[in-house]
Amino acid sequence: MPADPRLDSLLAAIQSVDGAFIEKARARQLELTKPPASLGRLEEIANRVAAIQGTFCPSVDRARILLFAADHGVCAEGVNPYPQAVTAQMVANFLRGGAAINVIARVVGAELEIVDAGVAYDIPAAEGLLRRPIARGTKNFCVEPAMSREQAIAAITMGAEMAERAVTEGCRLLGIGEMGIGNTTAASALTAALTGLPAVSVTGVGTGADDACLLRKRSAIERALALHAPCIDGPLEMLARLGGFEIGAMCGCCLGAAAHRCALLVDGFIATAAGALAVQFDPRVKDYLFAAHRSTEPGHAPLLQIIGQRPLLDLEMRLGEGTGAALAIPVVRAAVEAFTGMATFASASVSDRDAAAS
Amino acid sequence: MPADPRLDSLLAAIQSVDGAFIEKARARQLELTKPPASLGRLEEIANRVAAIQGTFCPSVDRARILLFAADHGVCAEGVNPYPQAVTAQMVANFLRGGAAINVIARVVGAELEIVDAGVAYDIPAAEGLLRRPIARGTKNFCVEPAMSREQAIAAITMGAEMAERAVTEGCRLLGIGEMGIGNTTAASALTAALTGLPAVSVTGVGTGADDACLLRKRSAIERALALHAPCIDGPLEMLARLGGFEIGAMCGCCLGAAAHRCALLVDGFIATAAGALAVQFDPRVKDYLFAAHRSTEPGHAPLLQIIGQRPLLDLEMRLGEGTGAALAIPVVRAAVEAFTGMATFASASVSDRDAAAS
Repeated sequence: MPADPRLDSLLAAIQSVDGAFIEKARARQLELTKPPASLGRLEEIANRVAAIQGTFCPSVDRARILLFAADHGVCAEGVNPYPQAVTAQMVANFLRGGAAINVIARVVGAELEIVDAGVAYDIPAAEGLLRRPIARGTKNFCVEPAMSREQAIAAITMGAEMAERAVTEGCRLLGIGEMGIGNTTAASALTAALTGLPAVSVTGVGTGADDACLLRKRSAIERALALHAPCIDGPLEMLARLGGFEIGAMCGCCLGAAAHRCALLVDGFIATAAGALAVQFDPRVKDYLFAAHRSTEPGHAPLLQIIGQRPLLDLEMRLGEGTGAALAIPVVRAAVEAFTGMATFASASVSDRDAAAS
Repeated sequence: MPADPRLDSLLAAIQSVDGAFIEKARARQLELTKPPASLGRLEEIANRVAAIQGTFCPSVDRARILLFAADHGVCAEGVNPYPQAVTAQMVANFLRGGAAINVIARVVGAELEIVDAGVAYDIPAAEGLLRRPIARGTKNFCVEPAMSREQAIAAITMGAEMAERAVTEGCRLLGIGEMGIGNTTAASALTAALTGLPAVSVTGVGTGADDACLLRKRSAIERALALHAPCIDGPLEMLARLGGFEIGAMCGCCLGAAAHRCALLVDGFIATAAGALAVQFDPRVKDYLFAAHRSTEPGHAPLLQIIGQRPLLDLEMRLGEGTGAALAIPVVRAAVEAFTGMATFASASVSDRDAAAS
């Protein structure tokens, strides 16, 4: 485990969510004016958020999507149908409000913060961008580690700071998302390293790779694993060798959210890879994570097993940007507000089940 | 088919949704700044809503849940663990804002209209209740038809009027829901009649029937089918013999929404039974329906086949009240607003896929 003092103090702050509190919340659900368990998974969500916040009056009114952008040296291997310049172009699009995440965040009433975690191309000057680049893109992990250990620590602690700031500013629900041409390749490499599964079974088409592109992607991942796997001694080294700056930042967000007792919605495949890394640092992080949606990427399912979460939505989305996390916010809000806002059988004078019919 | 002039004119107004328009919307999706089809089912939703509204600028800003309450004579057979008085008590709870649907409608920014379609017990005077009772509960369909043909027509046309009024007032997305102790029994009887499946395979625990209650429920449905099936000559007679007033009203809502070219979210099992009835009147109604969520009731799946829709959400909910329909509203809004609000590759100066990397 790392000896970095910032990382150590972050990890030292993480505690388990109280299982006894979840049981108490479950009992409270039975008093609300609905048949027992009839709100299904909404009840589990509310019970866990209550336990995370340690109160029977939890709130997720203020929610924020943290969207980290970065570039990937592995693009030199021809793993993506889009040119690398698209990362910076899409960041500009986010800042102008023209991307899917802008629209969906607005629809669900979530704040959206765009963070440059390490984009390679120049991003036109624009309001609202948080510039926290670790470097201008990672190295090509087919030939060398994607980043240094110091850069990996910097990415994680930067992400944790973003989570901490959001909580300090009053957010009680976070969502993580990403933009980075080539980052499904990094996420697939991490998934193979985390699970031991062969590259072929955890590598998908990403943003729409054709057959030739997919073969290059798998080959790049296999070469990277052959080069780095023997040297990987833990999650920090794994991130450094195979990850990306936005993946490190999202991993840090998960750790930061857990350290500050805040629920966090994990977006799709790449965000779940970051979540799975965070769980390697401390398995108690699982208690704070909610899987927002099921990605169509084949590597997503084994990552969901690692974070111990079942997706809330399954809408065949594969866009990233935090769009799935944003779309799950109303589900979490509905769950929490039903728990706090519904009448009880007693307060509403509604007969409980099996009461004698009058 | 019925000879009632109100029903005839309602049915005469229903037209197919233009498949060519859906194709045009699909082409438009390819111009938006996202990988092709990466918004998954959101794209299908937006394309169909655009075609329903006949515009590339569809809107579902204003959405309304229509919640119909009514009582069921079959409760005399001991088919439900809650006393029948709970229907009226829950209507009072809706009017005070203490039920799950109140909370969820507020979370998603939907209007909520509560309609007394035929509650047996007195509902305390309260603001906001629309009183449109067809009668004070249906008859026990184990011994006679649940209602007359005239009552069935009245329920349908009342529901259609509610849909029409919502559209006239500016709503572009409707959701249907229900409250009625005993109405899973009616919905299961209708499902058996619609599909030819045996009662045992389409009858579930509803709000939480125990084993003895479930046996009484199945027996009641089997006796009702034996009594009425030979006389059923179409959907109107099926509704009259085996249905309920809220089911007839929801069926009318589906017909009214289609007649007024408005998208409609069908809630769970009981609402889908109403939707399936509407599809018997005119199969083109399918084009206007969206299945909000997958119910845990075993009869839901065959009904979904009849309305030709796959549920958007699967959260193990089984509450009714329109809670599933309400929870799906942000999904439809996100779909539609992404379609209308996203930048195009050209407008945002984002390189399309396979463009040469600079």
